[in-house]
Amino acid sequence: NGPFGAVIVQYDSATNEAIRHWVDCNAVVTSCDPSAHAEVSVIRKVCAELQTVHLDSLSDPVPSYCALYSSCEPCPMCYAASRWARLPVIAYAADRDDAERAGFVDAELYRELSTGSPKGMTHVTTPHAGAPFDLFIDSTNKQY
Amino acid sequence: NGPFGAVIVQYDSATNEAIRHWVDCNAVVTSCDPSAHAEVSVIRKVCAELQTVHLDSLSDPVPSYCALYSSCEPCPMCYAASRWARLPVIAYAADRDDAERAGFVDAELYRELSTGSPKGMTHVTTPHAGAPFDLFIDSTNKQY
Repeated sequence: NGPFGAVIVQYDSATNEAIRHWVDCNAVVTSCDPSAHAEVSVIRKVCAELQTVHLDSLSDPVPSYCALYSSCEPCPMCYAASRWARLPVIAYAADRDDAERAGFVDAELYRELSTGSPKGMTHVTTPHAGAPFDLFIDSTNKQY
Repeated sequence: NGPFGAVIVQYDSATNEAIRHWVDCNAVVTSCDPSAHAEVSVIRKVCAELQTVHLDSLSDPVPSYCALYSSCEPCPMCYAASRWARLPVIAYAADRDDAERAGFVDAELYRELSTGSPKGMTHVTTPHAGAPFDLFIDSTNKQY
């Protein structure tokens, strides 16, 4: 697998003692999944096991939260996945420049997103593009 | 499921005729996976079926490429996943502001990334942080 690893540790909110942890690594090629970076993979694993999508405020086995530790700076995909998972702590060792040295384009993706609106996406304006959100806002069962 | 859908269409490179397509939708809550946005889900589905992680240059059944169409502007996670999958076309209908209206924080994530270095990540400087990349660079079997 690739030269990336990530660990999520669950901490007791009262004592900050570690309760348990999960580990995963990059498996893009071996699992044929471009999203299978170490961070996304370990987030998926934890959420599946704890049956939640938010890792900032857990109650099993006690009030607790999770922190993500990554061997390398999370790419924008992994950063955004961590924010969607509401991970309150994201720490990393190597950075995007180290990854670039090994041929990975993390730094390029950060540059593209630094414009606020990355090129390469086409906005097709259509009259009812927002209609699904109107239905969602009015829905009494807001699952997503 | 949530108010987001995505389609990937595979096109014949010679004629630009559509060969086949795949559809998926947001399943974050239903699958307990914060990364299960419509775009990431459909990318995973296509890559698993075609047994590749790059969708810009396919050879089955003929020389071909894929395009991603999303009901809403891909969030930074989905944008970066699309770039890792080398999707040469990314088109969308509703935008991040429409999503914000329905309570989704896509626009906030774009703002965070527009700084080039989003806050909320801690760089822990360690002496051998880049060592995994040195090993990878020297490796004769560069799987990732």
